[in-house]
Amino acid sequence: MQKQMKSLIIALTCMTMPVMAQKTDLVNPIIGTNGMGHTFPGACAPFGIVQVSPDTDTIPHNINGVYQPRVYEYCAGYQHKDSSIVGFSHTHFSGTGHSDLGDILLMPFTGKLQINPGTADNPDSGYRSRFSHDTEISRPGYYEVLLVDNQIKVQLTATERTGIHKYTYPTDQKKQLILDLNHGIYNYDGKVLWANLRVENDTLVTGYRITNGWSRVNYTYFAISFSQPIIHYGYIDREKVNYPGGFRRFKTAENFPEIGGRKVVSYFEFKEGNTPLEIKVALSAVGTDGAVKNLQAEVSGKSFDTIHQETNEKWENALSIIDAKGSNDQLAMLYTSLYHTMINPSIYMDVDGKYRGIDHNIHQAEGFTNYTVFSVWDTYRALHPLFNIIKRDVSTDLVKSMLTHYNQSVHHLLPVWSHMGNENWCMIGYHSVSVLADAITKGLPINKQEAIKAMVSSSNIPYYDHTDEYKQLGYVPFDKSSTSASITLENAYEDWTIYHTALLLGDKQIANTYKKRALSYQNVFKPSLGFACPRYKDGSWKENIDLLSTHGQGFIEGNAWNYSFYVPQAPSDLIRLMGGNHCFIKKLDSLFTMHLPDKFFSKTEDVTREGLLGTYVHGNEPSHHIPYLYSWTTEPWKAQYWIREIMNRMYRNNIDGLCGNDDCGQMSAWYIFSAMGFYPVCPGTDQYVIGAPYLSYMKVNLENGKAFTIRADKVNDKNRYIKSVTLNGKPYKKAYITHQDIMNGGELVFQMASSPNKKRLFTEDEKAYSLKN
Amino acid sequence: MQKQMKSLIIALTCMTMPVMAQKTDLVNPIIGTNGMGHTFPGACAPFGIVQVSPDTDTIPHNINGVYQPRVYEYCAGYQHKDSSIVGFSHTHFSGTGHSDLGDILLMPFTGKLQINPGTADNPDSGYRSRFSHDTEISRPGYYEVLLVDNQIKVQLTATERTGIHKYTYPTDQKKQLILDLNHGIYNYDGKVLWANLRVENDTLVTGYRITNGWSRVNYTYFAISFSQPIIHYGYIDREKVNYPGGFRRFKTAENFPEIGGRKVVSYFEFKEGNTPLEIKVALSAVGTDGAVKNLQAEVSGKSFDTIHQETNEKWENALSIIDAKGSNDQLAMLYTSLYHTMINPSIYMDVDGKYRGIDHNIHQAEGFTNYTVFSVWDTYRALHPLFNIIKRDVSTDLVKSMLTHYNQSVHHLLPVWSHMGNENWCMIGYHSVSVLADAITKGLPINKQEAIKAMVSSSNIPYYDHTDEYKQLGYVPFDKSSTSASITLENAYEDWTIYHTALLLGDKQIANTYKKRALSYQNVFKPSLGFACPRYKDGSWKENIDLLSTHGQGFIEGNAWNYSFYVPQAPSDLIRLMGGNHCFIKKLDSLFTMHLPDKFFSKTEDVTREGLLGTYVHGNEPSHHIPYLYSWTTEPWKAQYWIREIMNRMYRNNIDGLCGNDDCGQMSAWYIFSAMGFYPVCPGTDQYVIGAPYLSYMKVNLENGKAFTIRADKVNDKNRYIKSVTLNGKPYKKAYITHQDIMNGGELVFQMASSPNKKRLFTEDEKAYSLKN
Repeated sequence: MQKQMKSLIIALTCMTMPVMAQKTDLVNPIIGTNGMGHTFPGACAPFGIVQVSPDTDTIPHNINGVYQPRVYEYCAGYQHKDSSIVGFSHTHFSGTGHSDLGDILLMPFTGKLQINPGTADNPDSGYRSRFSHDTEISRPGYYEVLLVDNQIKVQLTATERTGIHKYTYPTDQKKQLILDLNHGIYNYDGKVLWANLRVENDTLVTGYRITNGWSRVNYTYFAISFSQPIIHYGYIDREKVNYPGGFRRFKTAENFPEIGGRKVVSYFEFKEGNTPLEIKVALSAVGTDGAVKNLQAEVSGKSFDTIHQETNEKWENALSIIDAKGSNDQLAMLYTSLYHTMINPSIYMDVDGKYRGIDHNIHQAEGFTNYTVFSVWDTYRALHPLFNIIKRDVSTDLVKSMLTHYNQSVHHLLPVWSHMGNENWCMIGYHSVSVLADAITKGLPINKQEAIKAMVSSSNIPYYDHTDEYKQLGYVPFDKSSTSASITLENAYEDWTIYHTALLLGDKQIANTYKKRALSYQNVFKPSLGFACPRYKDGSWKENIDLLSTHGQGFIEGNAWNYSFYVPQAPSDLIRLMGGNHCFIKKLDSLFTMHLPDKFFSKTEDVTREGLLGTYVHGNEPSHHIPYLYSWTTEPWKAQYWIREIMNRMYRNNIDGLCGNDDCGQMSAWYIFSAMGFYPVCPGTDQYVIGAPYLSYMKVNLENGKAFTIRADKVNDKNRYIKSVTLNGKPYKKAYITHQDIMNGGELVFQMASSPNKKRLFTEDEKAYSLKN
Repeated sequence: MQKQMKSLIIALTCMTMPVMAQKTDLVNPIIGTNGMGHTFPGACAPFGIVQVSPDTDTIPHNINGVYQPRVYEYCAGYQHKDSSIVGFSHTHFSGTGHSDLGDILLMPFTGKLQINPGTADNPDSGYRSRFSHDTEISRPGYYEVLLVDNQIKVQLTATERTGIHKYTYPTDQKKQLILDLNHGIYNYDGKVLWANLRVENDTLVTGYRITNGWSRVNYTYFAISFSQPIIHYGYIDREKVNYPGGFRRFKTAENFPEIGGRKVVSYFEFKEGNTPLEIKVALSAVGTDGAVKNLQAEVSGKSFDTIHQETNEKWENALSIIDAKGSNDQLAMLYTSLYHTMINPSIYMDVDGKYRGIDHNIHQAEGFTNYTVFSVWDTYRALHPLFNIIKRDVSTDLVKSMLTHYNQSVHHLLPVWSHMGNENWCMIGYHSVSVLADAITKGLPINKQEAIKAMVSSSNIPYYDHTDEYKQLGYVPFDKSSTSASITLENAYEDWTIYHTALLLGDKQIANTYKKRALSYQNVFKPSLGFACPRYKDGSWKENIDLLSTHGQGFIEGNAWNYSFYVPQAPSDLIRLMGGNHCFIKKLDSLFTMHLPDKFFSKTEDVTREGLLGTYVHGNEPSHHIPYLYSWTTEPWKAQYWIREIMNRMYRNNIDGLCGNDDCGQMSAWYIFSAMGFYPVCPGTDQYVIGAPYLSYMKVNLENGKAFTIRADKVNDKNRYIKSVTLNGKPYKKAYITHQDIMNGGELVFQMASSPNKKRLFTEDEKAYSLKN
C-alpha cells in the first residue's frame, strides 16, 4: 500500500485533482504482474486498443542452442521479477495464456547508440536499462519509472488509440530514442513480415508493421508525433531484404525519410535541454492515415498532463459504477478487478469508424464500435454477464462486433479466440453463442434473428472440433479428439443457450433440436464411474481413466474432477447422475478438500499452487461455477464457506495476487460477482445464484440511473454465513436473484452469522434454472 | 505470318466476327518475346492491370550452389526459346529491364498432384507442362496453347482487372488445377511475405499475397470464380509458419476453407466431363472485397467468348486510332508497336475508384483513373508525347496519377520508376517533370499550379541523385556518383522543362532559376575533349576517359559518345560546343558508322548486337533523339537515311524483333513517331522534328474527331529521302511541325526520292527549338 499512497500523493500534488479519495487511487495494476497473472503495469484508457507498458524480457531465449520466444511467461511482456526494461511498447494482452503483440517499441537513451535490446544477463549489451521498482508508479492510465542506466524519467499515459510518453532526460545530454519495429512479444526470428517507416516531417513519423505471431497476420499502423523537432535520425535493417529497390543508391542509414524491411530498428535524436520530450503514438489497423486521424482526434494540442488527467477521469467514471466499503486490501482487489475487466476486449476501430475485419478487408462500422480480443472460452462465464449489468452499451457493441466477425468469417462462425482481425482457434467450443444468448435474455438491443442464425451456424461447422461426430453420436469420440469429453460437455451447455434463445424467440424447431443436443452431457457421464469420461466412437468408455490428471484423459485445462461438474444448464440432473443430493455433496466436499499430489499440479496449466483448493482449480475457468452448485443441494452454506476461501486465498493485493491468468478479465469478473454475493452459474438464464457477500457494502450505480445495493453489515471472515436475506426490505427466500431485480435497482441485505443457517434450504422452485430431461 | 493467318482464321470462324481485315489481326504480340525484348505473349485489355500470360521458367537457378532468381532474362516471365510452361500468372511488365510480378499463377493438370513447378530440364518433376509454339495463338486480348503433357487446351482473355481462363481437359479426366501463391517472377526464396486464401464457397475463392520483390512491398488481392463447383481442394505450405494459430487442430490440408502462410500452394478438383472449365480471376490492390467488386462489375455473367469478343473490340477501337498502308511485316510492326504502347502504364484502381497509394494507404480517386507502372526515364521521351496526340484522356489521368504520387510521397517527389504503390528509384533524373511540361504545353486539362509546384519540388530533393551538389556546383561531381555526367545532362534537360513551363505560366522567378540550371550541360562538356566528361568536385575532369565504355566513365546505359549528344533542349548550342556544324556532322556520322569492338558491346546492357549502329545504341533510350539532330545541321537528309536503317534493322516481325527492352512502350512509341516521319526531340516544346516517313500512308484518327494524314506515296527503302513537303497542300519549309498542326487535322505530304535533296536546308527560324545562352 505504500506504493498506492505514493501515487495518490503524486496525483494530488502534481495534478491538482480535487482532494477526495478516488476509485483510481484504489487500483493497484501491479497485482498479477508476477508469475501467472500475466497482467501488465502500463497505461491504458478503458477498453483502449493501446496499452503502453514496459516490456522486461521478451527476446528469445537460448534452449539447447535454438532461440525460442518466451511464449508463455511473457504474455503481457512484463514479469515483476525482472530487473531491466527493454522499452515501452503499445499493445498488450491483459492476463492471457498466449502471447503476442508488443508492437511499436520506444526506448529513450543517452550516449552511445546501441541498436539491439541486449540481454537480461547483461543490460549494458543493448539499449535496455536497469530499473528499480521503488521508482515505479502504476495507476489506471498512468505509469512511471526511472531508467537507472541513463537516469531518464519515463511517464506514460494513454487514450483509447494513443500512447503518450513523457521522457525527462538529464539536461546536459542529447535526447535519443530507439524505435524498434522488430521488437515484439513472442518474438521468434521472422515474426515481422514487413515493416515500413516514413519520417513525414521533423515532428511526425508514420509507419506500420505486419506480423505473423499468434494472430496469423496482424497489421499495426502508427503515427508518432514529437513535441520537439528531430535533429538527426537513422535506421538499420538487421536482415537486408533481397531487393530493396534502388535504396542502394542512397545513404539510407541516416536522414533518409522512408525505409522498409523485415527487421528495422530506427533511432532519433533531439536537442539537449531541460524540457522533457513528449511523444504521442497513435495506432490503427487500417492505415497510417487512420493513425494520423486518431492522433489528431484524440490528443492533438493536448499536453501529457492534460491527457493523463482526462484518462484518469475516464477511469474514475468507469470505476465509479461500483461503490464499496472494505479494508484497503479488499478495495484494492475489488477495484483492480474492475479495472482488469475494462482492458480487453479493446476498441478496434479508427475514430472515423474504419476497421480491419476478420477477412482482412477494411470495413466501415455503421452504428456500433468494433472491438477485438475475444477470449470467449474464458469470458462468456462472468465477464460478459457482468458487462450486461454494468456496461450494457459496451456489451451491445461487443455482441455486434461478434456478429460482424460472424458475417465476415469464411467459416460462418462466431469468434472462438480472435484478436486483431484473426481467428486463433484457441480452446474449445463455440462459446460466443452463450454471449449472444445472455445478451438477448438480458435485453440488449441486438438483432435477435441475426443472432440466432449466427448461433445455429456456429454450432454446425462440421470440421470444427468434430461437431459432425458430436451431432451424429451425441458426443465427440475420444478416437477423434484427446479433449473429447470437455468438448462434449461444453457443447452441451452452448446448445442449451441456443435452445433457450430459440424458446425466447418462439422458434420451436430450433428449440427441439437444441434441447436434445443440450442433454449431450449425459452421453459422456459414465454411471459406473460417477464421473464424466471420454468415450470411443463405438460407444465404449475409456478404461482406467486417471481422474486427477489433466492430460490425455479427454479433458483440457482441467481433469475429470473439474469437468464432471460442468453441466451449468442442468445442475439438478447432474446431481441425479452423481447419485443424488448426498453423493453430490460428498463429491463437492472432496473436490475442495482432497489432497492433490504435486505431480498433478505440475501438469496443471496456468495456475499457481495457491490457485488450488483440493483439486478445485480456480486458476483455470472450467471450475468457476462449481462452488455455487452447493445451492442446488441441502447444504448451500458450503458455497458460502468456499467462495470466501477462494477470494481470500486466490486474490491478493500484491504482485503474485492472481492465482492464474486473469484471462482478459474473467478471473476479475468472478471476483466482482462473488464479492456482490451472487454469480451467473448459467449465462443465458436471467438468474444469478446467491453465494455470500464479501463486503459489508457494495452499490452498483447502474447506467439506467438506478442503483442496486448489497449490504452485509457484519460480514467478515468469521461471519461468512448467511443467516437471512431481504430484497428491498422483504424476506427473500430464493437461491438466486434475477437480472430484473438488479436492473430495477434496490437493496439486497444479508444478515450474516458465524455459523451456517442450516434451515435456509430451497424448494425446487426456489432453486435456479435446471434443464429437465 | 503463318501464325497471324491462323489466328485470323480462328477469329473469323470461331467468333463470327465481321469478315473484314481488322487491326487486331495485324498485331503480333510474339514480337520481342525472345532475348532482349522482354515482351509477353499473353492476354490483356488496353491499359489493364491484368496481363494473364504463360510463364516459362521463372524459378531460381542454381549458381554455385546458391539459388538465384533470373532477374533479367525473365522480366516478362516468358522466353520464346523455352519448351515448357509453368503456368499462367496475372501480372507482367511489358518490356522492362527489371523483373517482378508474376502474381497468382494457375496451372491446369490431370492425374497425379504435384505441388512444385518442376524444372525446365525435367518438366515431369513438377506441374509444368511441355508445349509447342505450333499450338500457340497470341493476339491482343487472347492467348491459346495446348499443354502437351496433359493434353489440356488453354485459352486466355482479359478485361482491365480480370484474367479469364478457359481450360478444355480430356473428357475422361478429373479437371484439376494448381493455384500457386508462391510462384512469381524474380522469385527469390522469401519473396512472398504473406499469402492468404479463402474458399468462400464452391465457386468462389478469394485471397491475397504480399511480396517483397522489385517493389519493396506489393499487395495483390484476388477473387477467383469457377464455372463449375469445386469438389475437393487442399493446399500445402512449403514453409510452415512458426505459429499458425490453432490450425494444428484441423486437417487443414484438405477442404479447410481458410489458409495463410508464406509459401502456399493450393489445388482444386472439378468433375470430369466435356464442358471446359472457365475461371475468372479479378485483381485488386485494395482488398478481396475490391477484387470481388471488380469481378462482378467486369465479367459477372459473361462467357469466355463474350469477354474475348469485347476485349477484342476494345483493342480494335484502341488500334483504330491509326490507319496505315504497308507490307504485312511493316503493318505487323506498326500495330504491334501501337499495341505495346497500351499495356503499361496500367490502371491501378478498383471499379469503385479505390486504390493503394505510394503511402500504402487506401485512397479514393476523385475525378480521375489512377495508373501505375511508370518507367519514366524511358517513357518521357516518346510514349507520353505520343499519348498527348492519340490518348489525351489517358495521358491526363497519367499526369493526375503522377501528381497524386507526388502528393502522397514522403519525398515530395514525382515518380522516378514506380509500380504498385512503390518507388523503385530505378535510373536517374526526375523525368516526370518532362511529362508534366509536355502535358501543359499540349493543353491537357491539369492543374498547372499544382504541376509546377510538384516539378520544382521534385528537382530539389537534396539527397536524391546528389541534387544538392548539382545545384551548388552546376554539375554532379564524379567523386559522388559514378554516373555523374549522365545525371547532369539529364537534369539540365529536365530543368529546361521547368524553365519552359514557368515561362508559360508567367513565373519569371522560377524561369530565371531554371534557365540557369538548364544550361548545366555546359558544365560537363570538356572542350578539349569535344565530349561530355565527368568532373570532380574541385572542377577537374576525369582523366583518360574511355569514350566507348558504358561502365565507370560517368555515364549509365550509354557511353560518352551516346550521352554527349544528350542536350535535346539546346541542339544549336551543342553544335557550337562540338566545334560547329561540320564537326558536329562528322561526329554524328562517326557515331553511326564507327566500329564498336565486341568487348564494349558485351558490356552494353539491354541491347542485342542488332541494336547497335556503330556505337549508336537503340536498345537503350539515351540515344533515341540523336538521328533527328541532323535536322539542326546542313545535312538533315542523313537523319532520313539513319532513321530508316534503324527501323529496318531493329524492329522486325519475329520473336527477336526488338533490339532491346521495349521499356513499357518507349521503343514502340519511337517507332510509331518515326514511322509518321517526325519525333518529339525535346518533349515540353510543341514541336516534332521531321525525320522521314516510313510508310506511304498513315492517318491518325484523333479523339477530337479530326484526322491527321501523312502521305509519302513513293516511299520505300530506296526512296527514303525527302524531296519536298507540303502541309495541307502548301509547301512546308520548316524542320518541324507543331502539335497544333496535328491537332487541327490535315495532311502532311512528302515527296520522296532515292537521293537526298541537299538544297532542303533550314534557316535558324525554321529549325526546332534550341535554348540560347
